[in-house]
Amino acid sequence: MGDSENKRRIEIYDTTLRDGAQGAGVYLSLVDKLNITRQLDALEVDFVEGGYPLSNPKDEAYFVQVHELDLQHVQICAFGMTRRSGLPPADDPGMAALVASKADVITIVGKAWDLHVDEVLRCSRDENLEMIRDSLSFCAAAGYDVFFDAEHFFDGYRANRGYSLSTLGAAREGGASRLILCDTNGGSLPGWIADVVADVKQELGPGMKLGIHTHNDSGLATANALSAVEAGCVHVQGTINGLGERCGNADLTTVVPNLCLKLGYACLADHSLTRLTEASRHVYETANQNWNPAQPFVGSAAYAHKGGMHVHAVQRVPQSYEHVDPRLVGNTRSVLVSELSGASNVAATLGKKFDINKEIQRKLLERVQDLENEGYQFEAAMASFELLLHDLLDHRPIFWELDHYRCVILKSHQSLPMTEVSVKLKVNEQFEHRVAEGDGPVNALDAALRKCLAPHYPQVADVHLRDYKVRVVNPTAESAAKVRVIVEFAVIQRDSSDQNHFATVGVNENIVDASWQALSDAFVYHLMESQVTPFSER
Amino acid sequence: MGDSENKRRIEIYDTTLRDGAQGAGVYLSLVDKLNITRQLDALEVDFVEGGYPLSNPKDEAYFVQVHELDLQHVQICAFGMTRRSGLPPADDPGMAALVASKADVITIVGKAWDLHVDEVLRCSRDENLEMIRDSLSFCAAAGYDVFFDAEHFFDGYRANRGYSLSTLGAAREGGASRLILCDTNGGSLPGWIADVVADVKQELGPGMKLGIHTHNDSGLATANALSAVEAGCVHVQGTINGLGERCGNADLTTVVPNLCLKLGYACLADHSLTRLTEASRHVYETANQNWNPAQPFVGSAAYAHKGGMHVHAVQRVPQSYEHVDPRLVGNTRSVLVSELSGASNVAATLGKKFDINKEIQRKLLERVQDLENEGYQFEAAMASFELLLHDLLDHRPIFWELDHYRCVILKSHQSLPMTEVSVKLKVNEQFEHRVAEGDGPVNALDAALRKCLAPHYPQVADVHLRDYKVRVVNPTAESAAKVRVIVEFAVIQRDSSDQNHFATVGVNENIVDASWQALSDAFVYHLMESQVTPFSER
Repeated sequence: MGDSENKRRIEIYDTTLRDGAQGAGVYLSLVDKLNITRQLDALEVDFVEGGYPLSNPKDEAYFVQVHELDLQHVQICAFGMTRRSGLPPADDPGMAALVASKADVITIVGKAWDLHVDEVLRCSRDENLEMIRDSLSFCAAAGYDVFFDAEHFFDGYRANRGYSLSTLGAAREGGASRLILCDTNGGSLPGWIADVVADVKQELGPGMKLGIHTHNDSGLATANALSAVEAGCVHVQGTINGLGERCGNADLTTVVPNLCLKLGYACLADHSLTRLTEASRHVYETANQNWNPAQPFVGSAAYAHKGGMHVHAVQRVPQSYEHVDPRLVGNTRSVLVSELSGASNVAATLGKKFDINKEIQRKLLERVQDLENEGYQFEAAMASFELLLHDLLDHRPIFWELDHYRCVILKSHQSLPMTEVSVKLKVNEQFEHRVAEGDGPVNALDAALRKCLAPHYPQVADVHLRDYKVRVVNPTAESAAKVRVIVEFAVIQRDSSDQNHFATVGVNENIVDASWQALSDAFVYHLMESQVTPFSER
Repeated sequence: MGDSENKRRIEIYDTTLRDGAQGAGVYLSLVDKLNITRQLDALEVDFVEGGYPLSNPKDEAYFVQVHELDLQHVQICAFGMTRRSGLPPADDPGMAALVASKADVITIVGKAWDLHVDEVLRCSRDENLEMIRDSLSFCAAAGYDVFFDAEHFFDGYRANRGYSLSTLGAAREGGASRLILCDTNGGSLPGWIADVVADVKQELGPGMKLGIHTHNDSGLATANALSAVEAGCVHVQGTINGLGERCGNADLTTVVPNLCLKLGYACLADHSLTRLTEASRHVYETANQNWNPAQPFVGSAAYAHKGGMHVHAVQRVPQSYEHVDPRLVGNTRSVLVSELSGASNVAATLGKKFDINKEIQRKLLERVQDLENEGYQFEAAMASFELLLHDLLDHRPIFWELDHYRCVILKSHQSLPMTEVSVKLKVNEQFEHRVAEGDGPVNALDAALRKCLAPHYPQVADVHLRDYKVRVVNPTAESAAKVRVIVEFAVIQRDSSDQNHFATVGVNENIVDASWQALSDAFVYHLMESQVTPFSER
């Protein structure tokens, strides 16, 4: 996988805040953008493209406020287009906004494909070269380091090699310190990228720093970025989590580990690489998006192992089933319990917590398989899995007994639906009978159950319902559809900033009862974890 | 992009049902697996790997029931491991299950990396070769076409080229008609894949068909598959939507268009290629997963363009901003009006059924965007979407008015939960007030609503609830989570064997009320489609 000797230093240019923010459904506020800038600085990327100063007031404000951050490493880049046709740069408001940005770098995008000059810009090809040349020299004269993004370069090169190269020549004359070749439509293949980069490098000579900017429309953004670096590029543009228009940009959380760990290039420092998983999750949370569990290197399932023999081996000889040590990118290994599980799976999961013999392991496996046939799934609900083990060991504590619950949903014409739940439990030899309302049945069940438990077990107040997932499972075509509910909880101690998370599962034909099971498991699990002794055993 | 002349025919081997089902959080029931098999048959892939007959009762049942499907194109493959060490194939229960499967093909996976023979199998390297040879010859002797998956081949080749090649030799001696080289850990880079495939091809000579099986742990599953084909492989394994363990397998919805449209290979027929987007969405819905809007080629945002000059240009000169025509893969271009995708997709589909003016289109779009912000999704619920349009046009007929419904779920200690729903409606100037029981709230709501409507609208008896999907939307800490319910119905006329299918959607904080909305929409839609005049208009 590449040489182990030291190779070229590769610059990392992050455009999450500009090209990434173009992704469908992505909205980043000014505060979000400043927070992500801090995160990227901690990651020690070389350049952060903050936005397009003229495009909106938010980006304008960004370039004011970013100077108040105490940034240690990154250089901030302002992005803009070449000046308008027929207008001197000094009279162009876009140019004025760029030179007013006080960024460290100005990146100018210009047309490198003759088709776009003819059909989109609708000016002469010579005028486009002039626009590139004098837009860059205007910014350079104002004291900025200037980069040139050659838009649609790989399509332009195919259509008219000579013209596409002359756009790079114009940018060099304008003072560009980097020429970035962009596969703007994301349609190129790695072999084509390599051929074009090698030819450009040959044409421009060794002194010019070339960059690569790829999109994922063919599922090849990573491969294309790597291919360009192998052919001579020393600067890679991309976004955290591959955020971006259409199919997204090159994902830096994938490209960077490949460059560093597999191809032996120097880009992020080792201590930065271990922050990659955290950076990925931070950007997801900031953009209010779900994590992608399957994301290479940094996904929560990227090092998840299923299957018996397999798990046994990964513990003894990690490289046998892991292409890269998860710790190098700040990620962790996890073991999944599933319908294909074997004894070593269970043992691995429980090894740290319980000492169980082969006989119990076999029983547990049988029980898990039966339950999975009924529609249960424990991979994402390890708290219920542990309770199952306690059941088998006859350890499961009895904190209460259910007398009954009743859930009523009433909806009248034109009014909002009303949900009321009453719960009657026997706790500590006395009956608790409480009633609560909620937005829906789960919310109301949770509220009523807490009211019954709180006088006896005040610890239940630390448990907070965080997410709720429902899936209809049809174990067989013949039987009634069942509903599987997975509920996620956070435990927040009043005197601590720590949060622990766990999840439970319930399955039933009736969604309300499936939810009840998951809620009940959650409170039992939390009381057990808190080492509360049930009243019956005191 | 590649030659336009005819190139080699590439076989497509789908393992969504086996390797794909290993993905974290993926659960496919027997009915799901049979439905996906039908979809893959319509797509005309060459091979469908149905499962692992010995691993669980569901996969065993699959190989019985798959023969009852009227499949036109695909060959069904049963998957299993080489026999156990020290046991003749005839005495190995795994082997017995495979030859009892009545599949068209048996695919045997075996160890090709000496490390795995030593550390995981823990048998001699010669014994492993024997296990490969006689496991395959046992299946071949039983009359099966036999394929060999060489597990960890690319790591094995690096560690011990000679031994890895001898595993392929053993498989050929055992009668394998395909040798599939697997990058099981997903750690290889495209250049390495190309070098190894070229060497294997050289070693084995031109007669042997080589296949490639890649994983996405380095974000390179697609690039690696393409690289292997360019180096000589004629058989590609992958899954729909890249489902699979850890970071997933090669995504056939990305690999296939690259092979056909960019590299000029023959694999899926053109008419199959246009079903790719549908197949992707079908598998997402069946696996109850959210679509990936950014998925190359088939994602809902893959051809999304934001407003302005760009959109103007893409309409005049599509190739200026689109690497491939979306129609070739059954996808559509969309223009994003707001930050939300999807809305204009939906609006675009209207043209075919209704003749509505720009003003109504604009209003509808606004309304859809508002509803999508609330959590609605109409792509899979076109019946509700049509009703929305009738609302805007003031056409929506009033078949009844709700007075109220009440849903009670009662669960006592040790008994099954009881669900009772009463519904009171005003229909044809009279009140109908009925009560019904059910397995759960949806079932009981459906039963009670039918009882109210049947005396007035006997057509409701033709509508049958077929599937029910639930997803929690916007589970943020601040706002209450809402629930989106999508219900699918079949209309079966008593005097006909035809079935029509349609689906409706409901969203509410309360799952019972969301279900009520979807059920109500369904009956209104069916009565409208049956051209029933409401009593109020008679």
